[in-house]
Amino acid sequence: MAQSKDQPQQIKLGEFNLIADYFAPLAKAPGALGLLDDGAIVSINPGEELITTTDMLISGVHFLETAGPEQIATRLLAVNVSDLAAMGATPLGYLLVTALTPAQDGDWLSRFAKRLDRDQTRYGMTLLGGDTVATPGPLCLTVTAFGTVPAGSALKRSMARVGDQIYVSGTLGDSALGLKALQGDLPDLDQHHRDFLVDRLENPQPQYELGPSLRGIAGGIADISDGFVADLSHICAASGVGAEVLADQVPLSAAARAVIDCTPSSFTTILTTILTGGDDYELVFTALPESQGQIAHIAALLGLNLTPVGTITAGSGVTVIDANQNVIPLKTIGYKHF
Amino acid sequence: MAQSKDQPQQIKLGEFNLIADYFAPLAKAPGALGLLDDGAIVSINPGEELITTTDMLISGVHFLETAGPEQIATRLLAVNVSDLAAMGATPLGYLLVTALTPAQDGDWLSRFAKRLDRDQTRYGMTLLGGDTVATPGPLCLTVTAFGTVPAGSALKRSMARVGDQIYVSGTLGDSALGLKALQGDLPDLDQHHRDFLVDRLENPQPQYELGPSLRGIAGGIADISDGFVADLSHICAASGVGAEVLADQVPLSAAARAVIDCTPSSFTTILTTILTGGDDYELVFTALPESQGQIAHIAALLGLNLTPVGTITAGSGVTVIDANQNVIPLKTIGYKHF
Repeated sequence: MAQSKDQPQQIKLGEFNLIADYFAPLAKAPGALGLLDDGAIVSINPGEELITTTDMLISGVHFLETAGPEQIATRLLAVNVSDLAAMGATPLGYLLVTALTPAQDGDWLSRFAKRLDRDQTRYGMTLLGGDTVATPGPLCLTVTAFGTVPAGSALKRSMARVGDQIYVSGTLGDSALGLKALQGDLPDLDQHHRDFLVDRLENPQPQYELGPSLRGIAGGIADISDGFVADLSHICAASGVGAEVLADQVPLSAAARAVIDCTPSSFTTILTTILTGGDDYELVFTALPESQGQIAHIAALLGLNLTPVGTITAGSGVTVIDANQNVIPLKTIGYKHF
Repeated sequence: MAQSKDQPQQIKLGEFNLIADYFAPLAKAPGALGLLDDGAIVSINPGEELITTTDMLISGVHFLETAGPEQIATRLLAVNVSDLAAMGATPLGYLLVTALTPAQDGDWLSRFAKRLDRDQTRYGMTLLGGDTVATPGPLCLTVTAFGTVPAGSALKRSMARVGDQIYVSGTLGDSALGLKALQGDLPDLDQHHRDFLVDRLENPQPQYELGPSLRGIAGGIADISDGFVADLSHICAASGVGAEVLADQVPLSAAARAVIDCTPSSFTTILTTILTGGDDYELVFTALPESQGQIAHIAALLGLNLTPVGTITAGSGVTVIDANQNVIPLKTIGYKHF
C-alpha cells in the first residue's frame, strides 16, 4: 500500500519483524501458517458450526488514552470472547488487526503480546492471523474471534419465551461504578471497594465457560456490554416479548452496595448506572422455570452466581419494578455510539 | 461502552438504525441472524476447510482522504478477496467493522452499502456480521473475509519448488502508475491512458476466479499487494528458494507502455515503480513446467493473461534481469508500514 504522502514514521520496526517478534509466538495452530501467508486455515470437526464475531476498540473511545497495553489486550479479547459466550460457543481462535501509532514501541508490544498470551491460553484460543498497519492515531485494534458449537446448538437472542425466568451471571454495575470512581465521582468510597470496581472495569472477565454450558437450556441470551436493560431489550425485541425485572433481585457486589450505602441520596442515579451502565461482560439469559435445578447445578459447577431477576412477559420492552411494585423510570438505556 | 467523556457527536443516526437501514440488507445468509445477534453462524460443507483473512483500511494511510464511498467499499472487499484468492479459496462471506466519523452521513452510507452489495454479489459473498463504532477520525474500516477450500487444498506461499516457472496474472504496475498520475508526476500522458491507470488504482479487481482454479496446480502463491518483487520475495522466503525474473517478460498494459514511451529518460525509475509499487491485486504463483498447458487452458477459460516471467532457483531472494542478462538493482522492495 502506498497511497499516502503522509506516512507515519516508525522506522525502528519493520512490519514483518514486528509480526515475527511479537505475534508469531501467539500463533500456535498449524492453520495459522506461522502468520506468514495471505490467510489462515480454520478446520472444524464434522458436525460443528463456526461462530464468529468482531469488535473494534479505539483509544479515547473504548478505553482511556492512559490505558496500558495489558488492559487493552485483556479488553480486546474479553469483548469478543463475551460475544462468543453469548452464542454458546467454545472459543477456538482469533484474528488480530493492530493500527499502531509511534507510541507502540517494543516495550509496549512485548507487554501487549504477553497479556494476549495469558488470556488466549485461559480461553483455549490461539492467534490465527491478522494485519498490522501504521496510523497517525488514535491507536485502533480489531479482533475477530472464532468459536465452535455442535451444529444447530448456537444460542440466540431471539429464543426467549413468555413465562421464562430471566437470569444474570455474576454482579451488575461494577464496571460502570468503576468508571465513576476513576472520574472522581465516588470520593467517599473505601479504597478496597474502589479497587474492586476499577478492576472490574479494567479486567473484564467474559463468561467463556458459562456460555457453552447453557446450550440447550438458555432461551434468549445476550452478553451485557451495552448495559443490562439495553441488552435485555435486544433479547425482547428479537424474541417479540417483554420483560419484567425486579430491581431488588439484581445481584450487586459488596462494593456496589457500599456505593449505595455511602451516597443514599443518589440511590436512583446509582441504580440507573448499575442497570444501564454497560461493560459488565456478564450474560443475561432466559430459561424455562423447570430448568431452575439445571441452572443451579451449572452455577455450582462453575462457582458462579446465576441469579433470577425477573420474568419474560407478553408485550414488549423492559420494565423495572421496585420492591413496592412501582415502575422505576430509566431514561438512559445503554451506551449509544451515535 | 461508556469510557470516554469525549464521545463524538452524531445523534442523527442510532447504531441499531444504522445497521438496520444500511447493512442488514447486505446480510443475505441465515447465519448472519439479521445482524441482530452477538455473532454469526458459519456453516461449511463436510470435507471443506474455512479460509479467513482480515485487512484494515485507514483514511489517509490506505486511501486518499478525498476517496469516495464507492472507491473505499470496492478496495475494502478487494484487498480481502485478493487474499482469499491467494489461498485458493472460493469467497463465502465477510464481517465488516466501521469506525465512522461525522462525515459518514446517510448519503455516504447509502452509497457505501450500494457498492458493497454490487461487489459482494460479484464475488458470491454475503455480509455475516460486524461492529459499528464512532470515532473522532480518521475513518477506519476492517473486513474479515471467509472462503472455503476442499480440505487440504489451500494454496500457500511455502510450496514453490526449484525449477518452477513463475507466472503473474494480468498486468503489473498500473495501480502504482495511477498513483503517480494522480500526484501529477505524469503530465505528458494521454488522458485515456491516465484514466485507465487511475481506474486500476481506484477499482482493484481481485482474481477471485483464478485463485480457486489454481488449486492443485500452483506451487507457491501470493497476491500482489505490497509489490511484485516484495510478494515474490515472501514466496521465496517461505519456500526456501530464490527467483530469477526476466524484466522484459513482465506483462505491461498499453497505458504502462505509454508511460515508458513518453518518459524514456526515466525508464529505470518507472520499471522500479512497476515491479515494486504494489496495489496490483494480481496473483503471482509458481508451477511445474509441465503445467504450462493446464495454465494456458485456465487463462483461456477465464479470459485472463497468465504470463511466465521467470524461474524459481536454488538460493534466496529475487533477482531481476534485463534483456542483456544484467541484474537490475531495485532499492525499494515494496511498501513498508513501519
